[in-house]
Amino acid sequence: MEAIETGIKDYLKLRNPKNVVDKIVEFIKEQFEKRNANGVICGLSGGIDSALVAFLLGRALPKEKILTLFMGERDTHPDSLKHARLVAETLGVELREINITGILRSIGVYSLEPSPLFIPRKFQERYTINKYLSNQDEKETSFLKSLKGGAGSIEIMKGNAYLHTKHRIRAVLLYFYGEQKNYIVAGCCNKTEKLTGYFVKYGDSASDFDPIADLYKTQVRELGEFLGVPREIIEKPPSPDLAPGITDEFALQMPYEKIDIILYALEHNLESELKNEGISEKEIEYIKTLKELSSHMRELPPHPEIKN
Amino acid sequence: MEAIETGIKDYLKLRNPKNVVDKIVEFIKEQFEKRNANGVICGLSGGIDSALVAFLLGRALPKEKILTLFMGERDTHPDSLKHARLVAETLGVELREINITGILRSIGVYSLEPSPLFIPRKFQERYTINKYLSNQDEKETSFLKSLKGGAGSIEIMKGNAYLHTKHRIRAVLLYFYGEQKNYIVAGCCNKTEKLTGYFVKYGDSASDFDPIADLYKTQVRELGEFLGVPREIIEKPPSPDLAPGITDEFALQMPYEKIDIILYALEHNLESELKNEGISEKEIEYIKTLKELSSHMRELPPHPEIKN
Repeated sequence: MEAIETGIKDYLKLRNPKNVVDKIVEFIKEQFEKRNANGVICGLSGGIDSALVAFLLGRALPKEKILTLFMGERDTHPDSLKHARLVAETLGVELREINITGILRSIGVYSLEPSPLFIPRKFQERYTINKYLSNQDEKETSFLKSLKGGAGSIEIMKGNAYLHTKHRIRAVLLYFYGEQKNYIVAGCCNKTEKLTGYFVKYGDSASDFDPIADLYKTQVRELGEFLGVPREIIEKPPSPDLAPGITDEFALQMPYEKIDIILYALEHNLESELKNEGISEKEIEYIKTLKELSSHMRELPPHPEIKN
Repeated sequence: MEAIETGIKDYLKLRNPKNVVDKIVEFIKEQFEKRNANGVICGLSGGIDSALVAFLLGRALPKEKILTLFMGERDTHPDSLKHARLVAETLGVELREINITGILRSIGVYSLEPSPLFIPRKFQERYTINKYLSNQDEKETSFLKSLKGGAGSIEIMKGNAYLHTKHRIRAVLLYFYGEQKNYIVAGCCNKTEKLTGYFVKYGDSASDFDPIADLYKTQVRELGEFLGVPREIIEKPPSPDLAPGITDEFALQMPYEKIDIILYALEHNLESELKNEGISEKEIEYIKTLKELSSHMRELPPHPEIKN
């Protein structure tokens, strides 16, 4: 992670983590009561975002009212289940482990990518990384092209379907298990993901309430530390865990520290400060483009107004 | 259908169907261009809403840019495929027929209900209807209870998971097939469904744009006739086609004509007119309750505001 010298980094730092926890806990209780729910369900991916959400749920509700799901598949990292279990055990909440490989296969998802059977994970990772790099160019990262619906690349279109369906099936299962018990679904997206479109429409963003959606990724880490989320989860490189070897910062092609500073500056009209502090025009434009291309993902589907 | 004497019925009637068509067609073209899409995908259920959407798409785009999916399963009515084919053939657009029974089985959906294997459809229908009726009481319809997350009834909770997962899987498939070609998803919900919560959150409401979301159900029928949607589709009783024998008006326990009049009156502050025209206080309260209970389904998931 490269160090960035800027005042904005300090603005991002949570001034009072306890107040933030109290506010989110209050919000969770409110949602729970408003919806007359019997409990709350959330996915545990093994990563920091869902771990933090689970820790916050644990502060707001009795643990018997919290159900977590781990939904691994063919490409899931071997550590993910271990970390999901660590969270559930630390909190004493129920974890159901569901392998979604069969469901994804019956949809046809795996037919879009060659089978990694008998291929060591290291080679799978190298294959995916090379593929990602070969699809991008000087002007546009593969991720940006994916937000454009592929930007003409059949490989990226297929990749979108391949990757997004995994998260969408997870959303289907959260509701399938949740509705059977009248449990509402807690979302795990953070503000950085929401603003850059680094989430799946009707996938990981499908929820009944979003406890951490107003926290930047760097703040999620901070709050995770504050609440005692296990170190190994906080310290591993964040990854969507959808394809071998692809971490968030590799996909986004920019470290979260920098993205958050740019997003914060755009939100608070501090753009001029950025230029004086080592962030290039091109980097700012990149983040602006991600925001713009993903705006439809943060809105309800539009419809024409019929005046009669 | 009982006749209702009220001025509101006249207000609902489309004054100029051609203008409405033009407006929606313009909107479809705009969305298509804005998103830089290669085409549009939509589900065809065999019913009037999706038929109308397909007819409108057909007016806005070349037929090669329209892909339709029929996604039948174990409980789908035998006529549905026939009507979906009729729509696709009339318009000359591609229809892919996908049986989603295997996907639903691999999720565990069918284990929530007894198997109808070897049981004639007539008996299946009677079973489902009786079950629906046995779960409701004087005060609350089964549908209202389902919006409450079951209102304590395990049968209704299971029913929610059973029924909703079917629509959610359809949304997953529309995006799975759509994203592979950079086609955007057209939604088929109408205004009556949206306002009463008679749709599935992240299911049939999951779309990129909603051409008919500002048309009441009675207006959908009118516009369908105007555009030449085949009569047998317009005239059959609307049904979500999720469980044998359950039509919309049976589930809602009120005819669409009446629901639309009440919704229109609530929207335009004409509630006092309703009472003079044969609509009871209890009926008005029922629709108000549906609106209120379903409000979370018409909003993005809420999150706490973090001030730092």
